[in-house]
Amino acid sequence: MFVQTRLVSKTMTHVAILGATGYSALELVKILLRHPGAEITAATSRQEGSPPLASVHPSLTGRIAINLEDLAPAAVAARAECVFSCLPHGVTAKLVPQLLGANCRVIDFSADYRLRDAEVYRQWYGEEHADPQRLSSAVYGLPELFRAQIVSAALVANPGCYPTSAILALAPLLKAGLIEPDGIIIDSKSGVSGAGRTLKMTTLFPECNESISAYNVGRHRHTPEIEQVLSIAAGHDVQVIFTPHLVPMDRGILSTAYSRPRGEVSEQEVLDALRRFYADEPFVRVVDHLPGTKDTSGTNDCHITARRVRDRVITISCLDNLIKGAAGAAVQNFNLMYGYDESTAL
Amino acid sequence: MFVQTRLVSKTMTHVAILGATGYSALELVKILLRHPGAEITAATSRQEGSPPLASVHPSLTGRIAINLEDLAPAAVAARAECVFSCLPHGVTAKLVPQLLGANCRVIDFSADYRLRDAEVYRQWYGEEHADPQRLSSAVYGLPELFRAQIVSAALVANPGCYPTSAILALAPLLKAGLIEPDGIIIDSKSGVSGAGRTLKMTTLFPECNESISAYNVGRHRHTPEIEQVLSIAAGHDVQVIFTPHLVPMDRGILSTAYSRPRGEVSEQEVLDALRRFYADEPFVRVVDHLPGTKDTSGTNDCHITARRVRDRVITISCLDNLIKGAAGAAVQNFNLMYGYDESTAL
Amino acid sequence: MFVQTRLVSKTMTHVAILGATGYSALELVKILLRHPGAEITAATSRQEGSPPLASVHPSLTGRIAINLEDLAPAAVAARAECVFSCLPHGVTAKLVPQLLGANCRVIDFSADYRLRDAEVYRQWYGEEHADPQRLSSAVYGLPELFRAQIVSAALVANPGCYPTSAILALAPLLKAGLIEPDGIIIDSKSGVSGAGRTLKMTTLFPECNESISAYNVGRHRHTPEIEQVLSIAAGHDVQVIFTPHLVPMDRGILSTAYSRPRGEVSEQEVLDALRRFYADEPFVRVVDHLPGTKDTSGTNDCHITARRVRDRVITISCLDNLIKGAAGAAVQNFNLMYGYDESTAL
Amino acid sequence: MFVQTRLVSKTMTHVAILGATGYSALELVKILLRHPGAEITAATSRQEGSPPLASVHPSLTGRIAINLEDLAPAAVAARAECVFSCLPHGVTAKLVPQLLGANCRVIDFSADYRLRDAEVYRQWYGEEHADPQRLSSAVYGLPELFRAQIVSAALVANPGCYPTSAILALAPLLKAGLIEPDGIIIDSKSGVSGAGRTLKMTTLFPECNESISAYNVGRHRHTPEIEQVLSIAAGHDVQVIFTPHLVPMDRGILSTAYSRPRGEVSEQEVLDALRRFYADEPFVRVVDHLPGTKDTSGTNDCHITARRVRDRVITISCLDNLIKGAAGAAVQNFNLMYGYDESTAL
Repeated sequence: MFVQTRLVSKTMTHVAILGATGYSALELVKILLRHPGAEITAATSRQEGSPPLASVHPSLTGRIAINLEDLAPAAVAARAECVFSCLPHGVTAKLVPQLLGANCRVIDFSADYRLRDAEVYRQWYGEEHADPQRLSSAVYGLPELFRAQIVSAALVANPGCYPTSAILALAPLLKAGLIEPDGIIIDSKSGVSGAGRTLKMTTLFPECNESISAYNVGRHRHTPEIEQVLSIAAGHDVQVIFTPHLVPMDRGILSTAYSRPRGEVSEQEVLDALRRFYADEPFVRVVDHLPGTKDTSGTNDCHITARRVRDRVITISCLDNLIKGAAGAAVQNFNLMYGYDESTAL
Repeated sequence: MFVQTRLVSKTMTHVAILGATGYSALELVKILLRHPGAEITAATSRQEGSPPLASVHPSLTGRIAINLEDLAPAAVAARAECVFSCLPHGVTAKLVPQLLGANCRVIDFSADYRLRDAEVYRQWYGEEHADPQRLSSAVYGLPELFRAQIVSAALVANPGCYPTSAILALAPLLKAGLIEPDGIIIDSKSGVSGAGRTLKMTTLFPECNESISAYNVGRHRHTPEIEQVLSIAAGHDVQVIFTPHLVPMDRGILSTAYSRPRGEVSEQEVLDALRRFYADEPFVRVVDHLPGTKDTSGTNDCHITARRVRDRVITISCLDNLIKGAAGAAVQNFNLMYGYDESTAL
Repeated sequence: MFVQTRLVSKTMTHVAILGATGYSALELVKILLRHPGAEITAATSRQEGSPPLASVHPSLTGRIAINLEDLAPAAVAARAECVFSCLPHGVTAKLVPQLLGANCRVIDFSADYRLRDAEVYRQWYGEEHADPQRLSSAVYGLPELFRAQIVSAALVANPGCYPTSAILALAPLLKAGLIEPDGIIIDSKSGVSGAGRTLKMTTLFPECNESISAYNVGRHRHTPEIEQVLSIAAGHDVQVIFTPHLVPMDRGILSTAYSRPRGEVSEQEVLDALRRFYADEPFVRVVDHLPGTKDTSGTNDCHITARRVRDRVITISCLDNLIKGAAGAAVQNFNLMYGYDESTAL
Repeated sequence: MFVQTRLVSKTMTHVAILGATGYSALELVKILLRHPGAEITAATSRQEGSPPLASVHPSLTGRIAINLEDLAPAAVAARAECVFSCLPHGVTAKLVPQLLGANCRVIDFSADYRLRDAEVYRQWYGEEHADPQRLSSAVYGLPELFRAQIVSAALVANPGCYPTSAILALAPLLKAGLIEPDGIIIDSKSGVSGAGRTLKMTTLFPECNESISAYNVGRHRHTPEIEQVLSIAAGHDVQVIFTPHLVPMDRGILSTAYSRPRGEVSEQEVLDALRRFYADEPFVRVVDHLPGTKDTSGTNDCHITARRVRDRVITISCLDNLIKGAAGAAVQNFNLMYGYDESTAL
C-alpha cells in the first residue's frame, strides 16, 4: 500500500481545513483530493497529539498523509491562503477576524456570517455575535444568486443545507413574481448526517433508524436564513414556516414547499420560469419527474420540479446535504474565488 | 417444533381472510393469533395448489397450520361469519355482495366502500363502481369518529393508512371550530410497506433505500377520502392538499398538517381540544413532545401533538401504517362488531 | 387518552425491573404488559427525580403509569417477589446477594452469573467477580437445555443473545455426536440494538448505517459462555472461534456456524436430529429454507436450518436479539419459575 | 440547466457500454464521465425506442446526453474501440466473438470468461458455454494478480465482486505459504445492489430491509471462480466453502475468511505479508483496525486486515461491490489496457 502523492506545483492554492473531523469536512477532503489546483496544507482539530487525519476518517486511509493539528489562526495563515472553516457557530466568529487580518480568504461552513443582522443572530442563536461589523461585507455563498460577489469575496458564508434546497426552488418564482411572498410553507426532510458527528441520543442508530420525526418545529435556525435570502429575491419581506424532519438515511435533503400562485399561473409556466433561471447553471437540474434524494447523492446537483395542485404551487427540490448543501458548495465557491472552472472536482 | 394449537370453543368467532399474502394480512394474522375470541378458518389467495400460509409468510412458521386456498365467496361464507378482505379495490366490490348475501359481516381493507359518492370513486379510481348502491350503508371504520355505527355494521370500510393519520389530527380541531376548513396542507411520509407486496421497480431496495421522494403529488387516491371525513367533522366542505412521500423504512406514517387557526387560538387550546376529544380513547395519545413513527411501531396507537407557528397550526401525527393504519384498526372494528373489549389483542 | 389499567389480583406476581432505561428493558415491559400474571411494581434507574418510565420510552406513552425510581435492593424487595435485572455486569453481582437474601428470585440479564468459573470471568471481563461462590448455584436460563433447573431456580442467568443463537443450533448436534467438538467457527451478525442504548461513536447512525464490520474479533465476551454450554452439551471441552459483526438494522441476530461432521452424516440426518431435539419446544422452529432475521423479528422464536457443504456442516440460526436473545427468554424463564404456561405473553 | 459537454479529442478512446441500465453500468458511466481519456459513444439496451440514458438513471440528468439504443455488435464496433459489456452471462458469450472479430477490445462484467474450464462452467451455470475455445485466452481482470496480462489483453473477464474481496485477502497468504490451502471458509456479506436491478421478491425493500440472511449456501457461482484463482496463487488445488449473505444496505461487501496457519505464524507475520504484497498497489490498503464497508464506499479501494485467533488466521476484507467489485475494477483494467495512469478517474 502506498499513499498517493501529487507534486505540489507553485501555482497551487494552499488550503487549510479547520475542524476537520466532521462529515462535511470529510466530503471536503475527498473533493479537494481530486482538485488539480488545491493542496491541503493543514487540517485542524482540538484532538490530543497530532493523529493522522485518516485515523478519524478511515475512508481516507492511504489517500492523504496529513495529520490533524491544534493550530492557532496565525499558524494556519502561514500555511494556507484559503481557509475552509468547519467549526461550530460562535467559535468561528472569534477566529475569522484574525484569519482575514492575516490575508487569508475564508469559506465558512458555520452560520456565523450568513445573517446580515446581528440582532436576528442574537434572537435565533441565543448569544451576541462576536464580530457583528463584518456581517455586511460577508457574501452569502450561493453562486446561483450571488456569483458576482463571491468571485471577489474575502469571506464567504457557505449556505445552510436546508436553505440551499428551499431557496433554489423558491427564489426564481419570487423573483419572477409567480408566487405570493406570504404563507409559504417549507416541509423539509433530511438524512441524519445533517445532525453532525457528535454523540446525541437522537441520532443513535436504534433511536432514529426505522423512524421519521419532525424536530425544532417553529424554531430551527435555518428559518431566518431562508427568509433573508428569499426576501432579497422577492424584493420585499418574506416569512416562511419551515419544518425539518429527520429521515433514516445517511444523506440527502428533500424540501416540499407550498406557496400560492400570484394570479393565474400554470404548472408549465412555473417549470419554464425555473428552467429559464437555471439555463446556464452547471448544478441545478429542473426535471419533469418527481426527484428523489438518491438522484443527487454524492453529487453537487440540485434537482427541482414543480406542480400546480388546487390553489397551490408545490415545488420539490433535493440535494446531497453534505455536497451541494456543504462541501460541494464550498468548493464551487472556491473555484469562483480562485479562478478555476466552476465545476472543477465537482 | 410443534404448531401451537388452541381449542376452538363453540363461542369463538370464525373469521376468514381474503387475499392473505400481503403485509396487512400478515399483521392481521399475527393479531388474530393472540385474540382469544377469533379463529381463522380460511385464508384465500389465487396461488396454485393450497400451500401453507406460513410458506408465503415465513414468520408464521410453527404458529398457524392453515393453508391458502382459492375459495369462492360461498365457500368462504360456509366457514366464517366475519370476513376480513385484503383484496385490491375493484375486485372487492364484486365479491362483497355475495358475502353479505350469505350473512357474513365484512371488514374491507380496500378503498371500495370508503367513498360515499360513486362519481367521486369513478374520478379518482378511473373505473365505475361495481356496487354503488351499497356505498350509503357501508360504515367508515374509524372508531374514534364512527364507533356507534361500527358496532352494528354489516360492512365496514377499513380506513386508508394516510387518512387515519390525517383525520385523527384534524377532525377534532375542525369539529371544535379551532381551524379554518380551507387551505389545509397535509404533508405525509410513509414507510415502504405501504406500497404493498407487489414487484415494483420503485420499491426495490437499491432504488428506495437511502432516498426520500414525493409521489402521486396532487392525485393520490386517499385525498377524497380525507376530504369526505373531514367535511363530515367540519359540517361543511373541506378541501386539502395531500402530498405523500416514500421514506426508507419498513413501516410508519408521519403526517405534518398545516392549517390556519380560526381567530385567536393558542397552542395550549389546540392541545387541550385534542386531549378532550381523545380522553376516553384507548389508542390515541396526545403528547407534548414531537413524536416519531417508531414510538408507535408495532402498536395500534396514534400519537399526536400540535404547535402554533406564525399564522399556522401545525399538527403532527404518527402511527404504524400496517396496524392502526390497517390490521389493528380492522381488529378494533371486529372487537366492536362482535362485542369483545375494544382493545382485545391490540 | 387514558392509561390502560388492569385490576391487580392477589394472585399476581409482583415484579421489579432494575435498570429500566435500555432496549431490553423496554421489550420486557411490553411483554409484561400483556402478561396476565405479572404486575410491574417498580422500575429503577439512577436518573434524577422520578420521571415517568414513558418519558424515556415514548412508545410506552399511555400504556404504563409507573415512574423510574432510584431504589435500594431492600426497597425493591419490599415491592416485588421477582426481580428482572437489566443492570451492567459488575454492578449486578453486588446487588444480587441482597435481593436473594430478601427472598426475591432474580432473572439477571447481565453476564455476571453465566460463567461457572470465576477465573474465566476474570480473564474475559477484566475484573474479580464480586460474588464468586454463587456461580455454581445460578442456573443458565436457556429452557431448551436447562428447563428442569430453571423451574426451581432462585437465580437465573439469562443467556447472552449471541450464545442463544449459536447454542440452539449446535448443542443438539454435539449432544447427538453428529459433529466434531473442535474447530467450530461461529460467524455471527447482529443488529445495532445489541450494542445497547449508550452513546458510542460506533453506533451513531451515520457511522454504522450502510456499513457492515466485524468487531471484538477473538475477544468477544460471549465466547467463553458459548464454550461452556456447548461443552456441557458435548460432554467434553469445546472451543469455538466466534466473530461478531454489526449489521445496519435495529434488531436480529443470524449465526452461521461451520463444523465438521463426525463420520458420514447427511444433511437430512442433521435436520432430523434438530427436529427431534426441538419436537416439543414452543419457540424453536427447524426449517428447510434459509431463514432471515426478519422471520423472527418481534417474536420469541429461533429459526434454524442446516446444510452439508463439502466437508462441513453449516447451521444457520436466527432470532430477535431483544426477545429470544433477552426479554422474551427472561419471560419464558419467569413463566417456568412461577408456573405459568411457558408461552404466556410470548 | 445545461448538459455538460466535453470536447472529444482525436486521441480519446471511444467506449461503448452494453446493457447500460443496471447498477454497475451506472457507476461505470459516472466514473467514465470524469475520465479525461474516455468518451462514451454508445450505450445499449433492449428497451423500446431510444430513450435518454438519464431517463433510466435519473442521477445522470444533465450530465450525459447519450441515448440508449438496441445495437448489433457490428454497430457497436463501428463506434467504439473498447466495449464494456454489462450483459448477463450466457448472452455475453454469444456477442463477444463478433466484437473481438471487429477489432474491439472487450471488458466483460459477466461470468462468461472468468472460468478457464468449460466443464466447470457447465456444472455451475447449468448450460453449455457458447464460446469455450476462447476461455484460455481471456484474462482474469484482477490487476493485483494479473496486471501484465491485462495490459495486452483483447478480452478481460472482470472479476466477480465476492471473488475480488476474498482473493485479495487470501491469495498473498497462499502464495507466501502462510496458510493451508484446504479447509478455507469464506463468510461474505453483501449489500443489495449486488443482486442487480431486476424485480425479485427477495430484494423488495420490505422483504430484505431490517433482515440479514444467507443465500445460495453451497452453490453460489462465485465459488469456482474463487477456487480457480486461489489455486493459481497457491500453486495447487484450493477448495473453499463460500457462504454469501444479504445485508440491508445499498452497497459494500465484507468477507470474513477463516484459514489455518501453516506452522507457527503470528498475526504480525500475516499483516506484514499482506503489506509487502500490496506495497505498490494503488487501491489495496492493509489496515490494523477492523474495517467496515463504509470505509470503502464509493471508492475503488479494498481494505484488508488480519487476526490470529486460536488455531485460525482470520482475514477481513471489504470493498464497494459496484466499484472495486465491478465498475472501478473495469476502469482500472481499461486504464492498463489503454496506457492511462492506472488510477485515472478512480
